[in-house]
Amino acid sequence: MPMTEPYRLHYAPDNASLVIRLALEELRQPYRALLVDRAARGQSSPAYLALNPVGLIPALETPDGPIFETGAILLWLADRHGALAPLPDAPDRGALLKWLFFLSNSLHPALRMTFYPDRYIGPGTAECTRLRRHMQGEIARHLDTLESAATDAPSLFSGAEPTVLSLYLAPMLRWMALYPEGETGWFSLARWPHLGDMAAALESRPSVAAAIRAEGLGPAPFTAPQPADPPEGSAL
Amino acid sequence: MPMTEPYRLHYAPDNASLVIRLALEELRQPYRALLVDRAARGQSSPAYLALNPVGLIPALETPDGPIFETGAILLWLADRHGALAPLPDAPDRGALLKWLFFLSNSLHPALRMTFYPDRYIGPGTAECTRLRRHMQGEIARHLDTLESAATDAPSLFSGAEPTVLSLYLAPMLRWMALYPEGETGWFSLARWPHLGDMAAALESRPSVAAAIRAEGLGPAPFTAPQPADPPEGSAL
Repeated sequence: MPMTEPYRLHYAPDNASLVIRLALEELRQPYRALLVDRAARGQSSPAYLALNPVGLIPALETPDGPIFETGAILLWLADRHGALAPLPDAPDRGALLKWLFFLSNSLHPALRMTFYPDRYIGPGTAECTRLRRHMQGEIARHLDTLESAATDAPSLFSGAEPTVLSLYLAPMLRWMALYPEGETGWFSLARWPHLGDMAAALESRPSVAAAIRAEGLGPAPFTAPQPADPPEGSAL
Repeated sequence: MPMTEPYRLHYAPDNASLVIRLALEELRQPYRALLVDRAARGQSSPAYLALNPVGLIPALETPDGPIFETGAILLWLADRHGALAPLPDAPDRGALLKWLFFLSNSLHPALRMTFYPDRYIGPGTAECTRLRRHMQGEIARHLDTLESAATDAPSLFSGAEPTVLSLYLAPMLRWMALYPEGETGWFSLARWPHLGDMAAALESRPSVAAAIRAEGLGPAPFTAPQPADPPEGSAL
């Protein structure tokens, strides 16, 4: 008997699982969203660690077993369903992969360092503030690089016809504008107009409307973000 | 007229380009290795930035254009040549991808933070030392996770029949043992026996022998590393 919901997304509102929710919605794949209770450190529970021993959100249960790492899940879904990314033999596959890995190993970790600096340098207000500030400068430099890339390869970073790159990048732009609270003055989306256009175009997609409803993201979650007000769970 | 060398690898000895050299050797693909002169900051030259605007080594020129990011190049080569990784439709593709992204976005950046802490927190000996020490603890934790993964899925982390994971991980084990000089007392490969077995098995591969010759890596580059003594260029 085939499963009607082949996918189970372990999520917390406005966490990296948002990227996977958007991808599943774009692919029109049925899925069940299962809340990870961050307030109770659900991502460190034995049941969750059995799905993702790294203890980070998201994890996606699939007919082929659990997958974690946002970039890995994105690419796996894209390849399995033949959408959101050039196929492995396509001429622009290499360009897609290099920017996907860049988002995953440079931009995303840099963001995490500004949100959770103590996980990188240990406790200490002065050291954490210094790491955060330095990395916010690095993020700005990364966005300059991505603005050029989006100018050169607009189809790979399209918001109107989403790819794994736009689905991954737009939520990160949101988080830069929101987190950590009171420490986001460095960020202004207007500085990166192609990325802003991408984010605006994405906001008209039904996938984003579904995510707004499910996670309480407000009316313009990428171009004019408001803190999440989710129907269940907590973002932090 | 077909190119006899479809690939041009921009490399520096004992840099992340080593991973790609190993993959090209395993795939028996002809390639030309072009030295990036780190002593002259060649990775920041306009010519290099045209290949890789991020300014990191390696970059691989392919018939489909330049690719950068170690993980992206690895996966692209594996898919293009149908080796070193499960194919996109294979049942263990998701497992391969999650660990490849984990190596790329958690282990590799953690290593870079211990080598170049000032790029993350700015100048300052005390702050840099603190960041390095904390991240060396994180690396040990990541290796515990990978040791379990290699135990559970030995074929994905095989050294005898290499995959993109073993080719990426073994050089990182080398760098942990060597760099930064005088700051590696925390590391002992014996603590992670499955990873050690993987590294030892890989050392018997002709691909590794070729890399030893080309980059001056010494007789046991993963299990008993010595600083590189390359025939051209410099590792740092």
